[in-house]
Amino acid sequence: MKKVINNPENVLSEMLIGIEKAHPEYLKKLENANVLVRTDLSKEKVAIVSGGGSGHEPAHAGYVGKGMLDAAVVGQVFTSPTPDQVYEAIKAVDRGKGVLLVIKNYSGDIMNFEMAKDMADMDGIKVESVVVNDDVAVEDSTFTTGRRGIAGTVFVHKIAGAAAERGMELKEVKRIAEKVISNVRSMGIALGSCTVPASGKPNFTLKEDEIEIGIGIHGEPGIRREKIGTADEMVSKLMKKILDDIKINEKDEVAVMVNGMCSTPLMELYIVNKKVNELLNSNGIKVYKTFVGEYMTSLEMAGFSITILKLDNEIKELLDDFSDTPAFKIIK
Amino acid sequence: MKKVINNPENVLSEMLIGIEKAHPEYLKKLENANVLVRTDLSKEKVAIVSGGGSGHEPAHAGYVGKGMLDAAVVGQVFTSPTPDQVYEAIKAVDRGKGVLLVIKNYSGDIMNFEMAKDMADMDGIKVESVVVNDDVAVEDSTFTTGRRGIAGTVFVHKIAGAAAERGMELKEVKRIAEKVISNVRSMGIALGSCTVPASGKPNFTLKEDEIEIGIGIHGEPGIRREKIGTADEMVSKLMKKILDDIKINEKDEVAVMVNGMCSTPLMELYIVNKKVNELLNSNGIKVYKTFVGEYMTSLEMAGFSITILKLDNEIKELLDDFSDTPAFKIIK
Repeated sequence: MKKVINNPENVLSEMLIGIEKAHPEYLKKLENANVLVRTDLSKEKVAIVSGGGSGHEPAHAGYVGKGMLDAAVVGQVFTSPTPDQVYEAIKAVDRGKGVLLVIKNYSGDIMNFEMAKDMADMDGIKVESVVVNDDVAVEDSTFTTGRRGIAGTVFVHKIAGAAAERGMELKEVKRIAEKVISNVRSMGIALGSCTVPASGKPNFTLKEDEIEIGIGIHGEPGIRREKIGTADEMVSKLMKKILDDIKINEKDEVAVMVNGMCSTPLMELYIVNKKVNELLNSNGIKVYKTFVGEYMTSLEMAGFSITILKLDNEIKELLDDFSDTPAFKIIK
Repeated sequence: MKKVINNPENVLSEMLIGIEKAHPEYLKKLENANVLVRTDLSKEKVAIVSGGGSGHEPAHAGYVGKGMLDAAVVGQVFTSPTPDQVYEAIKAVDRGKGVLLVIKNYSGDIMNFEMAKDMADMDGIKVESVVVNDDVAVEDSTFTTGRRGIAGTVFVHKIAGAAAERGMELKEVKRIAEKVISNVRSMGIALGSCTVPASGKPNFTLKEDEIEIGIGIHGEPGIRREKIGTADEMVSKLMKKILDDIKINEKDEVAVMVNGMCSTPLMELYIVNKKVNELLNSNGIKVYKTFVGEYMTSLEMAGFSITILKLDNEIKELLDDFSDTPAFKIIK
């Protein structure tokens, strides 16, 4: 294991300090919990809370700020945060208008976030939740019943966050988040593995010429392993599965996210984007906005995922709304 | 070589299409050259042009936009762009107020950018240039006489770009760029190598427990190879060399950039930032602003660099000015 760390046991606590020191204008850590909370909570609005295991940075702390999250709950590496941590986040950001929890579909996350919701309910805090399950690769997986939540979650943060920032009520914000979830699909490929610091060993291994199609963001198995092909071949496989799953009509507009898992250079992500764009255009689908970069990573895993979000006027407007967070800025 | 590419010969041309398709609101490719030019050239102002070999994305195309670059010239991987390409960039963006070339200190870049300057001079275009040499690791290296230009270049883009956007004259913009260059220092470490697609073989190799201190962004040799230590030990070595080189007094303010080379996760970069922040604070130096992420990469190299920019009021104000580019947004 070759990592820039001190003690494997301290990666979470040290990272949290590093994040707080990097972005004091956006967020601060709660004293009693591994929760990064937006500095400016002055506005009376619905609060959005998300989170999950760490190792996916900039998710989720990088999305705390104006127009996105009010708090990110940060678990140990690839490990769901405990209910009491989520509960602390809810209490810290509720301004009387209620809280929406954006949960990625992993059994541990759902259990812990829902328990926190129950705890907050008893305090009289209105809490609703949505579960993101954008990964079309496989039904049920190592840590999940049903489809996994991956990079599409960032679109849910952005769009639900914009709805909350506009002053919409909790019920409306939840409706919009659910619409985004029903309109977003993703799928990924791994070219290389990753190592959880506390374990010290790679989560899985791939041969020199082998890739895994449909892999999860914790290295959960995908559809199959096969020999690496060209970028265009890999992209075509992912895009076929995504477009087969979601009904997009000619002249529909979409937002695209080409997400790097970590060790795949931006140069290659742009080559991926070229093919994604061609395939969409050849189907008569218009690309409205594109995001290329690292949004939902998996420690040092090599690979990428593609996310397609089908737009309507409401989603489009909210996607375009101003947001200002460490890792996601939309300037109107 | 395990990469998400099609033909190694086409990585540059395909990447340029992918960039253009991803960021049409910011930039477009010149038809006759590998140059990405800002879409909005309506403002009469000094133009800023930078560039170099590709493989360092988001540098330099990611910095084309309001408040930073007017054009990025993109060479083959780790290869200086030819003079005619730079010349096309200059012609495309000059609005009569002149052009500042921001060159990283590599012999090939300097030769080719200076030749382009001479070509533009003959057309009557006012062109000035500055050379960034922020890397304190070594004097003279594989491709360089004197110190290399690395991630500190991004601060030069930002601050000279802001000066130009404010309407300052070429001479003033150049003065400010030179002040930033004299105030900025960087140094990096590699934990893993990278492979130029056309060669197919790693540029260098490191043992399982070995790092290279002071490595360049093309894998040029650093100071020495040694066994990997803790994050804090690695950071301390870089910071000592940086702070020994630049006179920063107590109560001075600095901007910090913790830059990932590619395969080092953001989690680890934040752990680096924690130590950087502690060391500066313990020296009585105030951190005014921090940037943690991938700004000047080196294909899939693992590792990071630290950049420290000493601020004065003029630099601070320009650093804070609004900028809107694909990879660097400052919202006032």
